[in-house]
Amino acid sequence: MDTINISRHISGQFNEDLETVINHVMSMGGLVEKQLQDSITAMIEADEDLAKEVLKNDYKINEFEVYIDEECSRIIAKRQPAAGDLRLIMAIIKTITDLERIGDEAEKIANVAQESFSKEQRDLLLNLENLGNSVLKMLQKTLDAFTRMDFDAAMKVHQRDSKIDREYEALMRQLMTYMMEDPRSIPQIMSVIWSARALERIGDRCQNICEYIMYFVKGKVFRHTSPEDMKNV
Amino acid sequence: MDTINISRHISGQFNEDLETVINHVMSMGGLVEKQLQDSITAMIEADEDLAKEVLKNDYKINEFEVYIDEECSRIIAKRQPAAGDLRLIMAIIKTITDLERIGDEAEKIANVAQESFSKEQRDLLLNLENLGNSVLKMLQKTLDAFTRMDFDAAMKVHQRDSKIDREYEALMRQLMTYMMEDPRSIPQIMSVIWSARALERIGDRCQNICEYIMYFVKGKVFRHTSPEDMKNV
Repeated sequence: MDTINISRHISGQFNEDLETVINHVMSMGGLVEKQLQDSITAMIEADEDLAKEVLKNDYKINEFEVYIDEECSRIIAKRQPAAGDLRLIMAIIKTITDLERIGDEAEKIANVAQESFSKEQRDLLLNLENLGNSVLKMLQKTLDAFTRMDFDAAMKVHQRDSKIDREYEALMRQLMTYMMEDPRSIPQIMSVIWSARALERIGDRCQNICEYIMYFVKGKVFRHTSPEDMKNV
Repeated sequence: MDTINISRHISGQFNEDLETVINHVMSMGGLVEKQLQDSITAMIEADEDLAKEVLKNDYKINEFEVYIDEECSRIIAKRQPAAGDLRLIMAIIKTITDLERIGDEAEKIANVAQESFSKEQRDLLLNLENLGNSVLKMLQKTLDAFTRMDFDAAMKVHQRDSKIDREYEALMRQLMTYMMEDPRSIPQIMSVIWSARALERIGDRCQNICEYIMYFVKGKVFRHTSPEDMKNV
């Protein structure tokens, strides 16, 4: 993630400023990806130390968000960008908000990973592994599409969210069945449910970022467009 | 909500453009408030028609978001604002994202309001009334603080979120107890839990908007600041 290939979109004078800020977004993205990966591992492997590390590192993501936000404002004030350049900055400002919130969701998962579960209940956490891996892959592909500002890749990732929604629904049905069979385990299973929900929301946030990429490339808002209409652009 | 009082923050030439966009944000806010009010009423009074109307009207909020976003880009490109003016536009761009998502949460509540509950289960929905009213009041106060770009009001509303979190936690414990006592009702109670969660998230989003207001007024980011530090500005 240390190279960028969007120079063709950028008019001359902005190059340096924009490349710097985009590199910061990528570093932030890499950190968010690591936090998500670690929170899932902490959950699956009952690794309390790793969970603590995720909680300890969240401030770095917050700092990135504040810093990049200020960088973008500085660029707007100094460079007075128009059209494509401005669209890129808008896409960045919105993307970092979603990245920061993905970091918050990873924090929630790390919190659950610190709770005490019985051996039997811990098995339930394993159910999160598939969903966690799918969401992690979606985040990686989102960051990759961002790096290349690739419309087609963003659209493909965007559509991937329905797969995650299906996995989430299946897991939720399974967890509800567990609760009905063993009501005493409800508090613990609710913790698993909150983690599943956090993962599902990360999928939604990846989808948001893909919409910003698509908006940047085509200069058209895709936020409230159906998948069919997206293809006809 | 048809008057604004932030002209003292705005340098001459931007006045007209900015007033127009701020009036649009307020209209959008009023619509979001109505959608939330209607979704809560639909839930409490089991009013399916009203729930359908909420679902039907969501597109209007989406249209507002897209339109105001474009308006803000146009102002930046045309007026090349700096400092306070730019901060205001940034605050607006972020505010409408949260308003739109509050609309989405209202949609979720309206969806639950359409589900069929037995008489007994319907009583459970009444538990949402207090939380719903608190959140609605918080949204109203947030929009009011936005209208006046009032730092102190925004800080006060921001702190109100902990009250909502407490109400939410209490409701959640109550709902978990119900589930443990009557496991057959779990699927319906989960629907109530999702609605409670949607309300709690609306509180978080109001908190976000308050942070943008505070950022605009003081030129300082409050997003990751503790309540104690907020007072010392």
